[in-house]
This record gives sequence, structure tokens and C-alpha cells, in this order.
Amino acid sequence: MSKFFLEKYNTLDAYVPGEQPQDRKYLKLNTNESPYPPSLRVLDAAFQEASRLNLYSDPECKALTAALASAFDVAPENVLVTNGSDEALNFAFMAFCDSIVFPSVTYGFYPVIANLNGISYREIPVTPDFRINVDDYIAVNDDIVIANPNAPTGICLSVADIEKIVASNPDNIVIIDEAYVDFGAESCVPLTANYNNLIVTQTFSKSRSLAGARLGFAIASSELIADMRTIKDSMNPYNVNRMTMAAGMAALADNEYYVSNCREIEETRAYTVYDLEDLGFSILPSKANFVFAKNPNISGKDLYLKLKEKGVLVRHFDKPELTDFVRITIGTRAQMETLIEKIKEVLS
Amino acid sequence: MSKFFLEKYNTLDAYVPGEQPQDRKYLKLNTNESPYPPSLRVLDAAFQEASRLNLYSDPECKALTAALASAFDVAPENVLVTNGSDEALNFAFMAFCDSIVFPSVTYGFYPVIANLNGISYREIPVTPDFRINVDDYIAVNDDIVIANPNAPTGICLSVADIEKIVASNPDNIVIIDEAYVDFGAESCVPLTANYNNLIVTQTFSKSRSLAGARLGFAIASSELIADMRTIKDSMNPYNVNRMTMAAGMAALADNEYYVSNCREIEETRAYTVYDLEDLGFSILPSKANFVFAKNPNISGKDLYLKLKEKGVLVRHFDKPELTDFVRITIGTRAQMETLIEKIKEVLS
Repeated sequence: MSKFFLEKYNTLDAYVPGEQPQDRKYLKLNTNESPYPPSLRVLDAAFQEASRLNLYSDPECKALTAALASAFDVAPENVLVTNGSDEALNFAFMAFCDSIVFPSVTYGFYPVIANLNGISYREIPVTPDFRINVDDYIAVNDDIVIANPNAPTGICLSVADIEKIVASNPDNIVIIDEAYVDFGAESCVPLTANYNNLIVTQTFSKSRSLAGARLGFAIASSELIADMRTIKDSMNPYNVNRMTMAAGMAALADNEYYVSNCREIEETRAYTVYDLEDLGFSILPSKANFVFAKNPNISGKDLYLKLKEKGVLVRHFDKPELTDFVRITIGTRAQMETLIEKIKEVLS
Repeated sequence: MSKFFLEKYNTLDAYVPGEQPQDRKYLKLNTNESPYPPSLRVLDAAFQEASRLNLYSDPECKALTAALASAFDVAPENVLVTNGSDEALNFAFMAFCDSIVFPSVTYGFYPVIANLNGISYREIPVTPDFRINVDDYIAVNDDIVIANPNAPTGICLSVADIEKIVASNPDNIVIIDEAYVDFGAESCVPLTANYNNLIVTQTFSKSRSLAGARLGFAIASSELIADMRTIKDSMNPYNVNRMTMAAGMAALADNEYYVSNCREIEETRAYTVYDLEDLGFSILPSKANFVFAKNPNISGKDLYLKLKEKGVLVRHFDKPELTDFVRITIGTRAQMETLIEKIKEVLS
């Protein structure tokens, strides 16, 4: 730390992304990426746009905003396009939050951006079986962020439950992070029409095979979006590049391909759960493109390390309440067969 | 503004990017873009990378960081790659600044990010001929940001002058924004080896024909870079997308093409200045890819509006001290001939 670093950041604990070791070729099941490449239309759109890279991207992101509005049946004024949904979350935290609550088990980025922005936060314990207890969020008189489905558990709340939370906190912002919503959960976007305190964020990283393009968005009332846009325009006016905008447009146009990939991942998830349970694992009920699994015969850390030795990356979280588990991204059927084979070797 | 927007942002005045009207085809000389497309190697690199977009980009940006370090003869620890140099500037302001000074005529983004981050700022008047008076920045006991060459004037300071400023403020950060350095000015990057309070930012947007790709970087002591990286990893860990990283690597490898474009723009700038002076314009001595010009027979605003009517966009700043001027980006020789022709029509 330099002597110039502002004191308020002295205790800042940056987010630690999933590892990307380069020492060998790994089967990567650790960062919840899609195993399916972007569609050909996306490749073509990105390439077409590359020849215009000498010109700035549209700071208002008009075309993609309109396409998203149409896809989600909202107005363009209800949409803000961002450089990944992490940026949307940060804009929302910055714009609206003095203090915030979130589940004790959730996406590790929330406490990081809370700290960064000087926002106090409180973690609301999940139940012993890792569920979010809706009653704990009724009229909490604090801003709220909930990942739905939650990470790293994959467990989701119903839209009706989320509506109860949003309706009971009319003077506070509720952010629903739907990064993993497309693998079997239901989106809260329709609720944004009725609640001016609700922000829904989504990403192209998971279901739309564009993690490496950095594209996310927020949907909310036009007033909240205007405020978030003021933050965006004050911080990084040209936040999304041309190729990514074009890729995003093409991905929306190729929706069938991506929906079919999601259904495939849901099926593969079911098979993976079946096979893992057969090997003695307990698995939380996941609606995401990953499963959170533990086995009574091996610690989460050991399993992670031994799989890594065998060329398979899964994610382990070194926190007491999560240490028994590993989070396993759902890849293709063939990839999951390899995983199961390697786990059998580890367990034997 | 929603009732949820934090009070501290009530007076936030977002940055206004140069207009991008879509009503007709314009000759765009208003946002300092390069008139030359990216090189073929850049297009190919971006396309190759598109097929891997389902995988996250490297949050450490290792390959491009190493390539930049090699190009600038510094260590990788001295480089931070960002989503445009605006992001590098914001990280530096956030990380290090409580209060900051900058010239009264400069890039309009500085007061915006100062306000956003609750940083007080003071504008130091430029001289009547729009120069930065170096003595005004000696031992100011405040952080400092200077665009060199400055915008929208194009006037630059020598490295020796900047060294005086940096050396006389050892307990404060000095940020030198070199967005326009490649069109005839000299870079301060070598000074970063000797001064642990100096941050130099550059961009791929201007000289490297990648405005639409969003790519910038900061070079500084390893300690300052580590602090800025902590901010980055706490705010947007995957800040740069795969295609842009690949494009940036290819642009560095194709350096000759870009250097030759810069020389071409310098020549065209000289011709443009000659022609404009012939039409009665006064022009500030520019080392950037734009000129700041005024004509005693027409106001800056009128000239801007009449050129817009004729399909040519230049930039006018509605501030009292700048209102006589227009800022004109240097395009190709043919584009500048069109500009001169249209100006002749306006003046006649």
C-alpha cells in the first residue's frame, strides 16, 4: 500500500475472482461460464463492428437498450446497459445505498462494493439448510440485495416471496441480482412495473455465453435508471465497447439458441445431481448453472485440491460455513462425465 | 431524480460527451477519433477472440499488461489496464485524492469525477493565451491533474516543466493525462521511474484507432498501481473484455501502422492550420489531433451550428472563455479539404 492511498481504503478487501491458472489445460468448472460458444451470428456481429473501432461506441447504448426493452417488455427508459452486471450492482450501491442487508451466504462481491463505497452492511443469516428466510427481510428498513437464484447455493425464491419483500420496504431499494435466473428460476422483471423501489440486474455472462464480452444490465423504474445513468455518465460515459454491444444485440436475436443451451444445462444438472448423489454427495436444490455439493467422506478443500491435481477446477470457499462444499459449474454432458470419473478416482 | 438518489449527488453534473446525431451522415470532426480504421491484424485478433467469449476475460489482463510494459520499458507491476483511460483517471482520483487542482481550461471530465467522488477541486487559471503557467503548480500542496497536451487547446508542456511540477509536490499525486501525446508531444512515462507520486494515463482511443474498443492504461510506481488495482478489483474485477484485450495486443504489435497514421495526422494538421489561418482564423499551437480555432468574423457557436447544417460536426464549448472557439478534430487530408470548403461557404 502506498503512502498516498486514502485511509478509508486501508481495510479494503478486494473481490477474489475464480482462479484462472495457466500452468496446464484444465476442465474449468469453477467460474460458472457457459460451456457453449457464442452463436455464429454473435461472432459475425462482433467482427463487423471491429472495423469501426476507431469511432467511439454510443454512450447511450441506444440500439441495445431498445432491443433489451423489447425483449423484456419494458420501455427503453427502464434499462441501463453496463460493463458486466457487476458494474450495474456498483452503480446501484453508489446511487442509492447508505446501509444495506444481504444474506450471510451469497455473492462475495456485495460486501466488497459496500466497503468500497463506505456503505455499512449487515448479513442476515441463512437457515441451517442455506435457505433465505423471507420473513427476515420484511420491513427491515434498510436497502436489500438478494441474488436469485442465490450464489453459491443455487437456491431460489419465488417471485411472490420477492414481491412480499419489495412491497414491505417501500422506502428502501431492493436489488435482485438475477445473474443465474435463466436456468429454471423466474424473473422479477415484471414487478418493476409496479414497484419504484425495485432494481433487477442481469448479465449476458452465463446463459448468453458472453462472460468474456462484459455485458450486463439493470431494469427498474425510469427514475431509478435515470439516477444510475447519472452515476454512469459521471464515471465512465462510454462504458460498453462497440463489439460487445453488437454481440449483445446478436445474442438477443439468437434467443432460441441460448434458450436451448439453458435447457441442455438444466438436463445436465439433473444428471450430475443424480450421479453425485450416487457417490454420497448432498446437493442443495439448484436452479442455477452450478451445484453446491458436499460429501461426508472428504472435505470441500481436499476435494477441490485433488480435482485440481487431476486437471479439473471447481470452486472452494474458505469460509467456515461453506468449507464442506465445493461449487461445481454445470458444463456439457461429456464434461460432467469426466468430472464424475475424476471424483470417483479421488474417493476411491 | 428519484427520492432514493443519495443527497450527495444532488448537484452532480454528468459529463456531456460529444454529440453523435443519427439524423443524417455527418463528417465527424467533433470527438477526436482517428480517421483511420484499426489495422487488419487488430480485426483478426478481435475476431479470433470472439469465439472464446463464453469464457471470462483475464481479470489481471496479464498478456496485455506485459506487452505494454515491454513497449514502455517498465515492469508489468507499473501498468494497470483499464476500460478506457477515463476509468484509469477515476481509479486514480478515487484512490488518492481528497482535493485536487487542474487548469481552468482542460478536459471537462476532471470536475465531474471530482464531484462524483466528493473531492474538492480548484481550477488554476490558464494565461490569456491559454497556456498553463508552470510556476502556478510548484509546491501547490494539492493533488494535480494536467492533460498534456491539454484539451481543448492542444498546447503542451515540456517533460522538463512537468518534472519541475512533480518534483516540487513530493507529498501529492500528480496525474498526467497523455490521451493526445502521440501527435507530436513527449511522454512523461520515463519520469515514473524516478517519482513515486507520478501517474501517467494513456489511451488506445486516439492514436491507436480504438475509441470504440474502450482501452486505456496507467503507468506509475508499483505501489500506486497496486492501490489502483485494489480499487479496480473492488469495483469491476473483469473490467476489460477479451476482444478489446486482443485488439490492444495486436495494435501494439502493429505499432508502425499507428505511428505512420500519427505522422500523417500531424502533416494534415499543419495543412489545416495553414488553410484556416488563410481564412482569418487564429489557432492555438496544437500538438494534438485537433486544433482550437477562432475567427473574428463569426462566433464559435454560429460556426458550429452552420457547419452542422452543412453536415460537418465540430465541437463548441458553451463556456464564456471558450465560446469564441471551435475544436476541430484532424481527419484525413480529404476530410479537412471538405471542412475548409464548408467553412468558406459559411464565411462567404
